[in-house]
Formats: sequence, C-alpha cells, structure tokens
Amino acid sequence: MTPDEAPFPATERTTIGRSPDRGTRDRRVAEAILDEGVLCHVGVTTDHGPVVIPTTYARRGDELLIHGSPAASWLRATGKGTPVCVTVTMVDGLVLARSAFHHSMNYRSVVVFGQAEPITDHGEKAAALDAIVEHIVPGRTAEVRPMRDDEVRGTLVVRLRLDEASTKIRAGGPIDDDDDLDLVDVWAGVIPVRTAFGEPEPDELSEALPTPPSVVDYGR
Amino acid sequence: MTPDEAPFPATERTTIGRSPDRGTRDRRVAEAILDEGVLCHVGVTTDHGPVVIPTTYARRGDELLIHGSPAASWLRATGKGTPVCVTVTMVDGLVLARSAFHHSMNYRSVVVFGQAEPITDHGEKAAALDAIVEHIVPGRTAEVRPMRDDEVRGTLVVRLRLDEASTKIRAGGPIDDDDDLDLVDVWAGVIPVRTAFGEPEPDELSEALPTPPSVVDYGR
Repeated sequence: MTPDEAPFPATERTTIGRSPDRGTRDRRVAEAILDEGVLCHVGVTTDHGPVVIPTTYARRGDELLIHGSPAASWLRATGKGTPVCVTVTMVDGLVLARSAFHHSMNYRSVVVFGQAEPITDHGEKAAALDAIVEHIVPGRTAEVRPMRDDEVRGTLVVRLRLDEASTKIRAGGPIDDDDDLDLVDVWAGVIPVRTAFGEPEPDELSEALPTPPSVVDYGR
Repeated sequence: MTPDEAPFPATERTTIGRSPDRGTRDRRVAEAILDEGVLCHVGVTTDHGPVVIPTTYARRGDELLIHGSPAASWLRATGKGTPVCVTVTMVDGLVLARSAFHHSMNYRSVVVFGQAEPITDHGEKAAALDAIVEHIVPGRTAEVRPMRDDEVRGTLVVRLRLDEASTKIRAGGPIDDDDDLDLVDVWAGVIPVRTAFGEPEPDELSEALPTPPSVVDYGR
C-alpha cells in the first residue's frame, strides 16, 4: 500500500462520536466526494469567534487548493499557516420515516483539518488558480484568456495538506423502530436530491457562438 | 419599521471586505435564503482548532433552531452558550467568463454569528425538533408518529438569535474586462445550477400507499 492509498489516520478530531458506522477512513471515498463538489465551507478561528465562509477549491493529489480571497482577512491574519477546517457536503436525499424522530438526510461529507498556507510563488499560484477553474469546468482554461500577472498577484490561494480528514456517508431508506413498522398507513421513503445543471445561457456576445466542449453536456 | 423589519446592524465581522456591492443587510432577504436551504454548516472553535459540521436547522421568527447532535461534543463543551458561526449557501450558477480570472459562481449565502444555547425545556425542545422536520418537509409532522419523550431527551437542539448576519448574493452573467470583449471567439455565459428533487421512492412497506400531501410535488 503506497502512502496515497493508506487510510486517513484516526485522530481525536476525526473520531466520529455519532453514527460511527457512517464514517470511513478510505482516502479514495473522500477524494471522490471532494472531486464532485464545487463548493467548500472554510472555518477559521478569529478574535471574534469562529467564521465559516463558502468558497471554491480543487483537490490536486494529496492537497486542497482553496480560493482564499473571500476569507482573506482571516486567512492572512495569523501569518504563515492558519488552522482551518474545510468541509464539503452533498445532500443526496430527504429521508422520511414513520416517526418524526427518525427523519434524516442522505448525504456525503468530508471534513478536512489542517494548516492553510498561502501559496506565495507566482507560478505555483497561477497553476493553483487554473486548477480551481479546471476543477469546476474541466477543459475551460484552454478556451479562455490566461491569468495575467497582476490578476494572480491580487488573489489569495491557500493550500492544505489532505492528511487528516473525516468522511461520513448516509445512504438508503428510513430506519424505523420495529414497533413503528405497524403504522401501516404511514408512507415512508426517500425524496432524492441532486444538483442539476441547466441549459447553458450564453451572454449577449456569445449567442452566435457554438457551445464550447467544456460546457456541452456539463455534469459532475 | 418594527424590529423584525430593521436591517441587520453593521458589525466588524459582518462588514464585507470583498465585493461589498454583493452584500445586503436586508432581513427579509436573509430569511428567504435560510427558509429555502435544508443544510447549514456550523462552525465552532475547539481546543483542536476550528470545526465545521453540516447539519439541519429551521428558522423560527428571529432565531435559528439547529439540530446539534452531529456537533454535540463541541456544542456542549463550553457550557451554556457556545460562540458559533452558521452558514447557509445555495449555488445558483457557474459563471464562465472570457478570462480564467473572471470565472465565478452565482450564489446566495447567509453567515450568522452568535451564541448557540442548548434548549433544555422538554416541551420547547420537542417543538424545536418538530420545527426542523417541518422546515425540511412542511406538513410532515402531522403524518407521522410524534416524538417520544426519550427521543427528545437524547437529542441536542441549540438555538441561536438571528441578530448578527451577513448576506451575500451574486447573480447574472460574467463580468469581463473591457479588453476581453474583443475575444469574439470565446463563449461566455452561465451554467445554471439548482437543487433538484426527484421522484419519491417509497420503502417496501409503503409501495401500495398513496404518496402523502407532504411529499406530492415536493419542492422548495
């Protein structure tokens, strides 16, 4: 087993207290969730308490690259490395049980802990920004005007080693108490939830252009 | 203007540094986003750094009710009130510009700051749990077996006053540099994103039952 295939280690903050059967330390499972998501929530501790900011990201091998500008004032505040928690969640279904109590959600989530470090090298930062665009819309960077130096300089990108993470997955139907199965008139089941991508909407100047490869049949 | 209609006050942590034109202090706008979402991300500060946990919630008037069990060990850790940040985000579109740099997302987000306090009164807690079920699936609690006392006792629900919040919205097409509008061969526009709810999937015992009112034509 190479290091890349080794499961995430058990640490105090990745040991799941509730529904531990829904947790996995399998790195490939976490990577698949991170690769499907487009949005992460970045948590940082500030003088004014915790702050949770939504932003975009990409996974590249065993690190996360995070567009840090929305949280720039906090990510820069503590110098070189900032302790962060980055969470990516996908809701897959609303789970309706026969009792109010057993209502639940189907979901997949990855909670990553680590130190976020600003990428300072200009070339590395430009590559990281391109990686984030490519994560969201594969093939897109080849279709557009590349980053200019001043654009790269004005943007904060942080990197985070993907070496401490907690993955949870709930799937399947409701889990009712045995006694509640006698409630034969109560419908129970799942309302599936998914992220849907609609028909691309070209802007005014693009209306006569063919839809480019990165946009045709877009899906994740 | 009643207090409920007053805008959120400007505080240090709700003053938006980046793209302030995308921010609003309008309470109704924040409430509409909170009412549409099904999932929030709760950030807390722990001895091991920040932690961000996905969970369900409901808005009731000027407070958020949050299902705290997924984060129970942290929400209980600091006693009566825990400083939290609760963020709800909806992605509405992928925004593709003519330059890599100006790629963006259409989204709506509300970031709420405050002290999360466990609801200890049994009746209030039961009502809060019902409110969370009703937030996700309106009308559902009347269709199912109510909460039992032991179920209510074993669950952590916290409340958070909705009095310090930051709302951001980005909508519309790409905003390109003027010079980039000359790139007449580059398609630019938006891929719309929405949360889609699929055909309800009854469990085995429900297959012969009619789909209940709370589930028929489910949408948000």
